[in-house]
Amino acid sequence: MTAFLDYLAELRPQVDRTLDRLLPTESEPPALLHSAMRYSVFGGGKRIRPALVALGGEVYGAPLESLLPAAAAMEMIHTFSLVHDDLPALDDDDLRRGRPTVHRQFDEAIAILAGDALLNCALTCLALEPASAPGAVRARAVAVAGHAVGSQGMIGGQVADLEAERSWPENPEQALESIHRRKTGSLLVASLVLGGVHAEAAEDALELLARLGEALGLLFQIGDDLLDVEGDSAALGKTAGKDAAAHKLTYPGLYGVAESRRRLGLVAAEARELAAALPRRRETVLSMIGYLGERDR
Amino acid sequence: MTAFLDYLAELRPQVDRTLDRLLPTESEPPALLHSAMRYSVFGGGKRIRPALVALGGEVYGAPLESLLPAAAAMEMIHTFSLVHDDLPALDDDDLRRGRPTVHRQFDEAIAILAGDALLNCALTCLALEPASAPGAVRARAVAVAGHAVGSQGMIGGQVADLEAERSWPENPEQALESIHRRKTGSLLVASLVLGGVHAEAAEDALELLARLGEALGLLFQIGDDLLDVEGDSAALGKTAGKDAAAHKLTYPGLYGVAESRRRLGLVAAEARELAAALPRRRETVLSMIGYLGERDR
Repeated sequence: MTAFLDYLAELRPQVDRTLDRLLPTESEPPALLHSAMRYSVFGGGKRIRPALVALGGEVYGAPLESLLPAAAAMEMIHTFSLVHDDLPALDDDDLRRGRPTVHRQFDEAIAILAGDALLNCALTCLALEPASAPGAVRARAVAVAGHAVGSQGMIGGQVADLEAERSWPENPEQALESIHRRKTGSLLVASLVLGGVHAEAAEDALELLARLGEALGLLFQIGDDLLDVEGDSAALGKTAGKDAAAHKLTYPGLYGVAESRRRLGLVAAEARELAAALPRRRETVLSMIGYLGERDR
Repeated sequence: MTAFLDYLAELRPQVDRTLDRLLPTESEPPALLHSAMRYSVFGGGKRIRPALVALGGEVYGAPLESLLPAAAAMEMIHTFSLVHDDLPALDDDDLRRGRPTVHRQFDEAIAILAGDALLNCALTCLALEPASAPGAVRARAVAVAGHAVGSQGMIGGQVADLEAERSWPENPEQALESIHRRKTGSLLVASLVLGGVHAEAAEDALELLARLGEALGLLFQIGDDLLDVEGDSAALGKTAGKDAAAHKLTYPGLYGVAESRRRLGLVAAEARELAAALPRRRETVLSMIGYLGERDR
């Protein structure tokens, strides 16, 4: 078996090489834009979403090589969302992964356009690569990613999050769940499903991957919220306690730390049950569930 | 023969119906985001890019029905670019087509996210529709549009434009041409080519459409620059004389009005020559060239 951290460590240089190949070089004009795109993408992410693409595909028998472009595309989409979320008009963050955010390092205009270009580059790559994949597979890959990003996915969740910050929702429990399902969960779901799409897996297999992705999204978010309460800024690479200070909807804020930990356990159990039905790579997926549930990010 | 303005008038309600079908309704949450997307898309554009998609496809025998989703997608992409260009960090415009810009009518965060969602929705629609088109055609459509939007297309041109405003380029003639080729031209090229892709036209036909699109882009931009010098704000729906006030690179600014008019004539002649080689709809295309060269927008 391969533990998830070993899987990530082995995958990471391959994902980074693919990102390096797909992104325009810094010397190509406009250099400023390409520098900003690369600054944000090569800023030290863990490459969790690429790992989900790779796992989702390998579970159903696709060779890793055929999954790398989609893996890189999902990392570009994740990065686009961070660059735009960090902007002054949104979360107004100065630090990301211990470094100045893109609009601090460059400027706001470049951050907006670099985010746009990353989203665009990601969807274009999904449409083009791998060239050996049937056109229908590439078109579906774009649709899966686009659906996860869209106004009813990640972007919609971001807007709902902004709205909740401005006025406390009437039903905060429901709002919290719905925001996270869209804002964090949808991209994790799409990553696993994209792997399955490239493996040309059956529809019920894609459904299983989607359900696993939803559980992982919840695991990830409850874990993240707990980390914001319990972690320190240095380990986080961003300011700890920021959620509470901003009156953000969070699991520990709404349910308390103990109850949040209990829910984390329930979701992890559900994820393990789903993982048991996978035809390959079960141990790596189980190890990932353990990692996401108890990680020190 | 159908004159271009008649073609536009006949096409417009069909494009708008398609946009209405493809965009989430305002009552769907997050309502604020969907309202902003619709506010910008249904803000009175001429639907020039949809007309180019339709013409590019009809020229090579595709039925109009099969071209409407791509036509709508190109209008979404055009709108996305306007919403982001108008932002305070970029052109900082308060008016667009005689109405408050999206960030004025809503706010900056919503304008950023609505732009993101429009780009995403456009590329997703190209991947999905028409469902009857081969997957390879839909995947190629995404790639054609994405290439035109990307860091070496429209977004790249926007960055180069910002750079030129901040410090006057060493070779302004070359900068002007290169900015407009990417910022305006690339989307017009992609619109015509998308039509050809959906008509499953041969590669040399797509090449002809691309060359025609480049000429149209130049025609469009020189015409736009002249209009800024010669037009009035009411007819423009935006502030006339803004380019000169902002020290923007423009054709009349660099070459004078008379020389710009002469160049407009040369480009129109080139476009007419290319149009003569089209197998259908020649008269409508010729009428469009006349319209773009002498329009009162």
